[in-house]
Amino acid sequence: MGRWEPDSRGRLQEAALALYSERGFDQTTAAQIAARAGLTERTFFRLFADKREVLFGGSALLQERIVAGVAGAPPGDGPLDAVAGGLAAAAAMLGESRRDLARQRQAVIVANPELRERELAKLADYAQTVATALHHRGVGEPQASLAAETGMTVFRVAMERWTSADDDLELADLMRDAMAELRAVAGG
Amino acid sequence: MGRWEPDSRGRLQEAALALYSERGFDQTTAAQIAARAGLTERTFFRLFADKREVLFGGSALLQERIVAGVAGAPPGDGPLDAVAGGLAAAAAMLGESRRDLARQRQAVIVANPELRERELAKLADYAQTVATALHHRGVGEPQASLAAETGMTVFRVAMERWTSADDDLELADLMRDAMAELRAVAGG
Repeated sequence: MGRWEPDSRGRLQEAALALYSERGFDQTTAAQIAARAGLTERTFFRLFADKREVLFGGSALLQERIVAGVAGAPPGDGPLDAVAGGLAAAAAMLGESRRDLARQRQAVIVANPELRERELAKLADYAQTVATALHHRGVGEPQASLAAETGMTVFRVAMERWTSADDDLELADLMRDAMAELRAVAGG
Repeated sequence: MGRWEPDSRGRLQEAALALYSERGFDQTTAAQIAARAGLTERTFFRLFADKREVLFGGSALLQERIVAGVAGAPPGDGPLDAVAGGLAAAAAMLGESRRDLARQRQAVIVANPELRERELAKLADYAQTVATALHHRGVGEPQASLAAETGMTVFRVAMERWTSADDDLELADLMRDAMAELRAVAGG
């Protein structure tokens, strides 16, 4: 990396996560984040609506990827296989992000009830759009909702493992493992 | 029923749900609920901490019942069978409540993002205590979390069906059906 760092967004995210971890989400201001990143508060608000968006900003894109993964699964795939296609797409996107930052993000969210509720709402939202994508594949109810929500359970469990374990397993493998475990639990 | 109605709690719940449905949760005050029930505001606050508790007051007891159902499942039962035992206990408790009130409650919650997040947080909480109950049965991770969260998916889908369908199916049967569908989706 040269001294010139054009990635203001990344620098702000890194600074925000460090501050949220050190002093807590509620105790951190946008001004402090900007100062830590060596940028202005104006730059912060050009890139993020508020300090919550630092944590949830990528979620619309992620949702799109998941839905595209579901829609793009082979026509013969059952509902949960199609959902697995969506999770693979999510893993491909999230697996690129720095694991240390994902880990900090997870810890910040777990420590704050309001952020935890927001995260749950986000996953419920994903489940709803995934169920809709399954309807478009001809899956009825309650199968579509059950498969979609089960997929979000698998997503959550794999993400938790990825952000807490010390091994260097790939997120994509963890998603596949969690899905296989889910199938075993449901079949047992 | 005689003219003397000792069930202040029930009357307040009924009045609250009617008002939340008619004018919205945010637009309703405790004083209005009490007036509608023919009781004093003081009685309201003796029975409920706030107007949210009218909607979520039974949840600690329900959680206890679910956990007891999981703990009391036959020792040989697999994790998801034990969770089904918890859902049966939940159905036994909730199935006693008036379906028209359960329906109103569901509609009020769906209409209000803050209440929806609270409801999701409640289910996540249930999932966590169910996972702990499974740990006590010797179930490891990630199986316990997967089975517990899958159980909450089944619970949610069955409750939604129970509070939206016009048939007179029993909640216990809907829970069993949803669990069977989940197993079929996961096995397919």
